[in-house]
Order: sequence, then C-alpha cells, then structure tokens
Amino acid sequence: MTQVKLYDTTLRDGMQGQGMSLSAAEKLRVVQALDRLGIHYVEAGFPSSNPKEAELFRLLGETELEQATICAFGMTRRRGIAADEDPGLRALVDTAAPVCTLVGKTWGLHLEKVTGASREENLTMIVDSVNYCRAAGKRVVYDAEHFFDAWVDDRGYALECLRAAAAAGAENVTLCDTNGATLPADAAAAAAAVVAELDRRVEVGIHTHNDAECAVASSLAAVEVGASLVQGTINGYGERCGNANLVSILPALQLKLGREVVPRDRLRLLTETAHLVDELTNTTPDADQPYVGRNAFAHKGGMHVAGIQADARTFEHLDPGLVGNSRDVLISELSGKGSVLSRAERAGIELDADSAKRALERIKEREHRGYHYEAADASFELLLRREAGSYQPLFRLESFRVIVEKRADGRVETEATIKIWVEGRRYVRTAEGNGPVNALDRALREAIGELHPHLADIELSDYKVRILDSHQGTGAVTRVLLDSTDGQESWGSLGVSENVIEASWEALVDSLEYAFQPRTPAAAERGAAEPSVVR
Amino acid sequence: MTQVKLYDTTLRDGMQGQGMSLSAAEKLRVVQALDRLGIHYVEAGFPSSNPKEAELFRLLGETELEQATICAFGMTRRRGIAADEDPGLRALVDTAAPVCTLVGKTWGLHLEKVTGASREENLTMIVDSVNYCRAAGKRVVYDAEHFFDAWVDDRGYALECLRAAAAAGAENVTLCDTNGATLPADAAAAAAAVVAELDRRVEVGIHTHNDAECAVASSLAAVEVGASLVQGTINGYGERCGNANLVSILPALQLKLGREVVPRDRLRLLTETAHLVDELTNTTPDADQPYVGRNAFAHKGGMHVAGIQADARTFEHLDPGLVGNSRDVLISELSGKGSVLSRAERAGIELDADSAKRALERIKEREHRGYHYEAADASFELLLRREAGSYQPLFRLESFRVIVEKRADGRVETEATIKIWVEGRRYVRTAEGNGPVNALDRALREAIGELHPHLADIELSDYKVRILDSHQGTGAVTRVLLDSTDGQESWGSLGVSENVIEASWEALVDSLEYAFQPRTPAAAERGAAEPSVVR
Repeated sequence: MTQVKLYDTTLRDGMQGQGMSLSAAEKLRVVQALDRLGIHYVEAGFPSSNPKEAELFRLLGETELEQATICAFGMTRRRGIAADEDPGLRALVDTAAPVCTLVGKTWGLHLEKVTGASREENLTMIVDSVNYCRAAGKRVVYDAEHFFDAWVDDRGYALECLRAAAAAGAENVTLCDTNGATLPADAAAAAAAVVAELDRRVEVGIHTHNDAECAVASSLAAVEVGASLVQGTINGYGERCGNANLVSILPALQLKLGREVVPRDRLRLLTETAHLVDELTNTTPDADQPYVGRNAFAHKGGMHVAGIQADARTFEHLDPGLVGNSRDVLISELSGKGSVLSRAERAGIELDADSAKRALERIKEREHRGYHYEAADASFELLLRREAGSYQPLFRLESFRVIVEKRADGRVETEATIKIWVEGRRYVRTAEGNGPVNALDRALREAIGELHPHLADIELSDYKVRILDSHQGTGAVTRVLLDSTDGQESWGSLGVSENVIEASWEALVDSLEYAFQPRTPAAAERGAAEPSVVR
Repeated sequence: MTQVKLYDTTLRDGMQGQGMSLSAAEKLRVVQALDRLGIHYVEAGFPSSNPKEAELFRLLGETELEQATICAFGMTRRRGIAADEDPGLRALVDTAAPVCTLVGKTWGLHLEKVTGASREENLTMIVDSVNYCRAAGKRVVYDAEHFFDAWVDDRGYALECLRAAAAAGAENVTLCDTNGATLPADAAAAAAAVVAELDRRVEVGIHTHNDAECAVASSLAAVEVGASLVQGTINGYGERCGNANLVSILPALQLKLGREVVPRDRLRLLTETAHLVDELTNTTPDADQPYVGRNAFAHKGGMHVAGIQADARTFEHLDPGLVGNSRDVLISELSGKGSVLSRAERAGIELDADSAKRALERIKEREHRGYHYEAADASFELLLRREAGSYQPLFRLESFRVIVEKRADGRVETEATIKIWVEGRRYVRTAEGNGPVNALDRALREAIGELHPHLADIELSDYKVRILDSHQGTGAVTRVLLDSTDGQESWGSLGVSENVIEASWEALVDSLEYAFQPRTPAAAERGAAEPSVVR
C-alpha cells in the first residue's frame, strides 16, 4: 500500500472560516503542534496576502521542525504577464518554504465566468507557473480547483490540466472539491480514473469540503482508490461548512484502514492538538466531535455503563487512549444510580444508598430547573459531597452588592461589596473590577485569599452565558458556565438564575470551593492513573 | 429505483444526546414539523420508560397527521419470560402507534457480556417478540443492534437473526452501526450482501452513528446498494458524536442522487424545520451546518462574490432556495469593498466611495478589538449608516447605573437608572428587572416607549456572552450577542467591552435602534423579494 501523507491547510483554507483569525506567533504554535503530531505538510499561508503572512514565513525560517515540510500557497500566474513578472508568484518563491502549492483552474465554467482565459491560455498559465517554481528550486503541488465539477463537465480537459502540471514538474496533483458538491462514490470513481490515467507518474491528492457532510468519507474513499495525499484542516475549520477534518481522517486511516500514517505514539497527541488549535483560534471545542470530543467516549445509559465495565468493545468503537482521549460517564436526566455511584467513586466520595438516592432526586429536580451538569463536573461533585456529608464550605455569604455605572464622561466603573463569614469572623470587602463578575471575584479573594494562598493559582479561563426557555414564555432563566484552571487541572462549574449576576456568583463560588475540597489520597491516585477524571 | 423512506428517531435516540430534554408538548411540535417536512416514519419514544412518554402517545392519539406514521420503540422480550408477560412489550403494543420497532441483539459479544442469552435463546427472543407485536396487529421494524460488528464477527449468525425477524413477520430489518465503528465502504459491502441474501423479501434499513464522521456517507452508501429506509435524527442529535443527520441525508438523496424522497415543495421546509427543532431543544444552531446553516451558502472572498454574481454555479453546490436557505455575503477581516457595497445596497444604504472606504477601515479596526459582525447584521447596518450619514439615533445617553444586590434574606434585587436626552428633553428613569440587562431594557423602554409604540413588539430572543482572548493574557474582553425579533423579522446585534454590562448595553441599544432606522421603499422591496436579507 502507498504511504499516505497528510497536508494541513488550517492556516490558509481554515482561516476562511467564520470568525477565524490568528497572529503570526499563534500560527507558529499551530505549525509546531502539527509537526509534533506528525503531519507531513503544513501550508503556512499565502505569502502575498498581507504583512502577517510575511512575518510568519520569517518566524518559520528561524524555527527548526522535527519532520514537517512547510508549503507556501499561491495562484497560477495572472493572464497577460510572464510568470517572473507576477508579484504573487515572486512572493511565493521568495519564501524559504521548500514546497509551492499552486492553485489553478480546470473547469470551463470558471474560465468562462471568472478568469476569462481560454482553455489553451489556462494550460499555458499552469505550465509557466509550475516551470517558474521548479526553476527556483521548489517542489510543486498543483491544486486543481473545482476538479470534480470539471470532471463531470469535460473530463478530457480536466485531465489535460493535470497532465500539463505533471509534465512541467509538479510532483503532486490534488483533486479539489472546492464547492463541496461531490458525494464519496463519485469522488472515488473520479479519483480512481485519474490514478489510472496518470499511470502513477505523479502523486494524486484529495482536498474536499464538507457541504454534503461527506468530506471525511470522500477523502477516505479517494485514498482507498490510490490517492496518497489528503488535504484538510484541524477540526474541519473552513468557509461555509468547513474543510475535510484531518482530526477524523488520521485515526480512520491509521486505526480503521491500517495505514501507518504517523508513528503510533504520536497519534496519542491527536486530542490535545485538536484542543490546542481550538484554544488558539478561540473556538469552543465541539463536545460531540468524533475521536477527540469530550462526549466521543461518554456513556449515559445504565446498560452502556454496565457493558463497558464487562468489556469496553461492547460499546466503544476503539480504545479512547489511542487518540489521547478518555472515557467518561455522563450525568443526566436519563442516567441511573450506577452512573452517579461511578462518578462518586472516581471522585473519592463515599455515597451510601440513601445519599445516592437523595443525590439522584436533587439532580433531577435541578435539571428540571435548567441545570445541566454534563459540562460542570465541579458543581456536580459539590452536589454529591453535600449529600454525602463531606462538603466543606469556604465561607458563608451574608450579602453582596454590585454597582455598574456608566458616567456622564463615558467612563465605566464597577464595584462589588461582599459580606461573608469565615470561621466565626465577619469580613466586609469592596473591590473594583473590569466587570461585575471580576469585581465579585476580587472582593471574595480579598476576603479569603490570606487563609487560602492556593487561590492565587486559580484562573477563570472561560465564561459562557445562555438564556434558557426564552421561547417558552415562562420567564427566561440564565445559565452561566465557568471554566477554571489552576494550571494543572481544569474544571467546569455552573449557576442558574433569572439574574445573570446571581448565576455567575453561584458558578464562581462552586469553582473556588471545588478546588478546596479535601480529597482522599486514593481519589488523587485514581485521578493520576486514569486521566478521564480531570474533566 | 426503490422508493427510499426516512425514519426519524430524534425523539428517542436523539434525546440520548448531551443536554437534550423535551416536554411532551414540545415533542408533539417536533412530530408535527417532521410530518409537514414529509418524513415517513417518526419514532415517538420508548413507551415504558416514563410518564412523559405516555403523555406524548396520548397527545399523538388526539392529533391528526398529514402523512407520517408513528412508531413506538422497544426491546425484544427479556430472558425467561413469555412475550405477553414482558411489561415493556405490553406497553409497546398498548400505544396507538401502528409500527413497533424492536431492537435486538445480533452480536455474540453482546450475548456473552451483556445479556447472557445463548445464540439459540436470542433467536427465540426475536421470534417471540415479533410474533407478539404482529398478533397485536402491529407492523414491525427489527433494529439489529451492533449489526456491523456482528457481521465482522460471524456473518452467518447475524443473518440468522435477520431471517428470524423477517420470518416472524417484520417488514423491515434495519442494520445498526450502534458504536459508529464502520466506514462507508464496509457498511455498503455488508448492506449489499444482506440485500442479496434476503432476496428482497424484506426491506433493509440503515441506522448509523457519527463516531467516524461518516454517518451520512454510510447511510447514502447503503441506499446505493439497495437499502430503502434510512434512520437518523434532525441535526444529527444523539449520544457521543451523534446519529446520522437526516437534514443532510434528505437533500443528498433528493438533489444529488435523484431519489424522490419527499415532494419537492416540502424540501423547502428543511431549513426552518432544522432550526425549529434546534430552538425547541435549546440547541444553538450550527452556523456551519451543511445545507441549512447560515454559513452554508455564505461567501466571503471578493472573488467568490464576483463569481456568484456572474453565475451562482461557480461557487455554489446547489441553489440554497431548494432547501429553504439563502445566500449570504459575510463581512470579515478578509473581505473587500465589494462585499461591503453589496450589503449596503441590500439594506438600501447609499454609500459613496469615500464612506465605503471609511466603513472598511472602521470594520477592520473594530474586528481587531473583538467585534465580529458575521452574526450581527443589525450592528453592521448601523455602522454603515453612521458612515453614510443616514444614521438616526433614538436618544443620547448621559449616564446609567445598575445595582444588583443579594440581600441577607437571600432575595436578589436589581435596579437600573438611566439618564437620557431625546429631542432636547432629559429623561431620568429607574426600573427593576430580573437581571441587569432586563432592568436596563425596561428603564429605556419607559423613557422612550411612548414616543415609539412599536418598541412593545420587539423582544430579545437570545443573549450570548463569550470571553475573548482570555488565553492571551491581554485582559479579557467580553462579547455579547443579542438576537431580537419583532415577530416578523429577526436580527442580531453585538457589543464588546471589558465589562459585560456595558457590552450588553451596546448590543441592546443597537438592537432597538436598528428597528427604527428609516428604510427606503426600495430596500423594503428588495427585502421581500430576496429572503436572504432577513438575517
């Protein structure tokens, strides 16, 4: 079997996705993470497009990578000028990237409606551009834009474009489903024909978009008929419905189709790489994402949990550890006592039959009011501790008051005052903040920070607010989810109230209290042995 | 070609997804929407599981549907008791649903590790259960759980289970990829073999999960080899990574594979059905969702916009109107003057070259600070109006103050005071609210509601808060997105500030001001002719 290589275009095509933006330094971190994961080619960008790209190529020139090859992306030369006079092509060969990826036309409709070039002229544009990059000592990938539409329209001409690129020295021709129109069976049929026609004198690649929710399947289908390069993005970022998701393609190739794409120990970096890139692009990780999502190996029903305990293969399509993910048992309206007991055990909380029953009733009652514990492990653990009698409050609240004022001069001032009791002593503290939650957080830390110096390590890392039931006209309820971290561990807490400030306060208190609950050594040990507990 | 039918399990398997919960009344609304869309079979639930399900079956008994057939879901009889003594089966045949869907085992590993039944005993359990439902006058679908794993393990026994169900009178045997392990090529090979082996004496269905991001592709592949029933959920809800997404399967079957699944005019209900179900389940619609997402036909790059204007086929895989969606031109860091002018024109704003240039600079500068106009058309239009000189403010703010107090008795009180100027007059108003944004909204409406009675029609329908850049350590910025509606039209506005209250205020003011901008009759007309403007 041909060795399959992965080509990442997160930093170019992925950045076309809605709301995507990365600084040059962040892009460098993405390149390094992809390199560690074992991705073979990393497309860094479009050198002519803006100064940020130039800065990235400069940074890359100073960076040593383990194994990845950097590619620079550009278009075939413009009409009516020589390749060496085209500023885009010149910028392309001027970077230190050893590979130039050239996108060009293959579809008559685009020649007619978009570029205005004749079919002959388009072939010359392809040949000139590949020649120019080759003469500058570059390896060339030719991205055949809209290839599958072109194939349906006029397969003879589509092939002619590929042959022209190959004859001029492109080492790879990649078939692009630019509009995402193509279903896997059609993609496979066209790719098989191209592989046969080109007689394996040039590598064939595949580049798909997810408009039919089939980008991963089309990529895999093309590999099965002989394509040896798969282009895609991390987490499937990209315009419209996204590009082919390399995070799903890599484990399918390696674990389901038996292709050795990256060394096996690197595959374990998949989950952390996917999450790191989400973090850098400020994207909320998709909890349901295949392989790496935190629900991907989550079990809810009582029967599933029992089955998994007997033999993981009963309800898991692969061992989550192989892709760096872990199994999780979710808490929900549908879940039974078994799940609650299993969560309690992992947290080291001793829950007898009565308290387990009370906890279940409490969970049901609170879920009915809008609480959802699935993303709020800290609040859930505190609920169990309250029922088990092992909950230790940090303080007792008497009252708080938050004032936000936008003054006539345009300045905004926020202050929070809290009155709390700790070990029989009353603390009244006022703090300013850049927002109401920040001010409350500061006032609370001022009151109890001396008693608990570890508080200084805890940071609030994300804060999300949703309005629930607004369409039911029953009075809107606000749900606040807070993510916190102490640099080692991350946890989620939640609050629900009509009032966003009160809901935030509830989540804030849970977040801090969670960090200070007494943990038995056994629980800590289980935590270390079983990474799934960190969530 | 066989007629392909769709079988929706949103209300049963979809409800296994994280955070999913619907009341009986909401489930009825889902059933009615699926019926209107033309879905052939709707699985209403698991009659034995809880009183909510009983209530739904009661409501369904009183409801007339246009064409959908209701299915009730249950398991084959338990070990060691007769079918007519099994409470689950009795509950199943007791509903008014004409179809019973029975899930049963086909995989040796599950018999061994989960049920403990022998292979013989399992066959008897299948036969008895189908017989019992048939004797009660029901049509039967047999869901062969873990079929594809069973097929790899022991295809002889897997087929024996299907034949047993068919011989006892099941009209359909559905092959379930319960763990989502199977890739499309393997699913198609197994389904083709089953279709051939069963000699078309019984219908074959397909039920897949999305753990390999291939659920849609596997479903389509099974249809191409002769499966005639596709089970899935709306928007792909379901546990772990979700079930096969009927919202992607339906248009692919109908528009790409040429199967007449639902009448063509019903296909136009696809987008609104998908969004309605998201609304009922309180799920944020996935903007990138194939076919129905608001980015699915969004165009960003200048070249794409020009291409679409020349011929939509250049950059669109199908006409968005066929699935009830619409084209959109996004505004972003990467977009050019063309997109801005096209948005301005659609909103009826006259923007000359200078003001377009200023608007672009303003957009770039604000995007840099965390504004993202892609989901905030109202704020974007106001920005353009400000540059065009056609912006009409509702009022001028002098100052506001919000106080949220949690008192010693546990009660929470919120009040907002605003001082504003309208037409030379100063208004000072204080209002209470169930939260700070609500209190500000009320105070503002008290001040200007008399001048603008249409304000009473405007409702805030969703409110979302995200923290930006928190991982960059540059000081967190809060972005608030507000969705509003006047019952006819919906629009989004946004605010960005360190302070969540100030960001909310900014979004609130944009939301209300948007509704009161003077619109030219031409723009209103364009709006009516081109539904894409409503966003």
